[in-house]
Amino acid sequence: MGKVKVIEIQCGIYERNNQVAAELRSELKNEGVCLINLMSSPGSGKTSTLLKTLAALKDEMKIGVMEADVDSDVDAEAVSELGVDVLQLHTCGACHTDAEMVTQCVKELGVQGKDLLFLENIGNLICTAGYDLGQNKNVLILSVPEGHDKPLKYPGMFEVVDLILVNKIDVMPYFDFDLEKFRQYVRKLNPKASILPISAKTGEGMQPWFEWLRKEVAQAKG
Amino acid sequence: MGKVKVIEIQCGIYERNNQVAAELRSELKNEGVCLINLMSSPGSGKTSTLLKTLAALKDEMKIGVMEADVDSDVDAEAVSELGVDVLQLHTCGACHTDAEMVTQCVKELGVQGKDLLFLENIGNLICTAGYDLGQNKNVLILSVPEGHDKPLKYPGMFEVVDLILVNKIDVMPYFDFDLEKFRQYVRKLNPKASILPISAKTGEGMQPWFEWLRKEVAQAKG
Repeated sequence: MGKVKVIEIQCGIYERNNQVAAELRSELKNEGVCLINLMSSPGSGKTSTLLKTLAALKDEMKIGVMEADVDSDVDAEAVSELGVDVLQLHTCGACHTDAEMVTQCVKELGVQGKDLLFLENIGNLICTAGYDLGQNKNVLILSVPEGHDKPLKYPGMFEVVDLILVNKIDVMPYFDFDLEKFRQYVRKLNPKASILPISAKTGEGMQPWFEWLRKEVAQAKG
Repeated sequence: MGKVKVIEIQCGIYERNNQVAAELRSELKNEGVCLINLMSSPGSGKTSTLLKTLAALKDEMKIGVMEADVDSDVDAEAVSELGVDVLQLHTCGACHTDAEMVTQCVKELGVQGKDLLFLENIGNLICTAGYDLGQNKNVLILSVPEGHDKPLKYPGMFEVVDLILVNKIDVMPYFDFDLEKFRQYVRKLNPKASILPISAKTGEGMQPWFEWLRKEVAQAKG
């Protein structure tokens, strides 16, 4: 009985969330701002990938960052040291961000004059995938040590992603990660998702990711 | 407004959950069965650690395994190949297991004659930590590639664990994992939590973990 109640109420929440997300998406479109929702498991390298990306692109476009965390400000501090506008969002224990939280953050950061906004979502392969946040694209970071079988276990995430960055390819020799099998698993769930192998640590494969971002930013400008 | 409603209803859910968990705990105590709730991020090595553990202990005690997954049966099949009783629990998209789900699984598996039950929980460092499942102990697997800063980001998990297995220590040379810093971060949140470094792959450090389990099983027998 209790469980059924949760589902009913969550439907209401999703409906409300989708309305708010649609409003944010429309506002960002009017302003020509691209919003990227960056998701991953804990410890896949969201922050290090983001820091390298900001360092590479911050002089050619105006970027803003929203750091969602259950707690702690360590990521926001690292971003701010690069001279990039950043806002820390504490979810106070919640396992996901919703469109209302992101809308508040976008307002706080300010969209005028911005080209690209990143939301570094909470490290979670389940709950974060369930919410439309008004983003242009969903980017997932999946790291080599996590294994190539993750699409089988977390299909909901792999169904909603536009781009997957396979991170930590520098440690590929020490793990049994089969990139071809991973591609096959992803393709079955989501034939349109792109896959780019990268190492945020060594910089390998980062250029195609930057190119992908440049195209998204250009497309958002219309 | 929507958000406040969720919180009110979730309080109700937690209360109901805690009642069911208390009932299960009492039933397991009467039967002298030890229930271990095994949690981690996606890809930390829950299944490989569990498989090595079952192979080592299955001839000296009667073990049952509950595999919780959003989807897929791959882990359950691997356990069953070892000749250990296993039950697959599909949460159908949900990000956590609750006491009612676990109670159903325990009934299905049967407790009579069992010494040790494992629940391999869903790969998630946030939602799984919030539910009492009637377990004797919470065990967290945190793998070296995830980084030593995870207690700062997912404090709710580290506050509720009894034992942390730091897995994948065989790849320690390729990552910047500082075990001493990790110990300090954990100690601040949870001074009572034990920490055991292991490699499920090479078998290093596994004996102290087996010893810990033997003690828990003996304690549950009373």
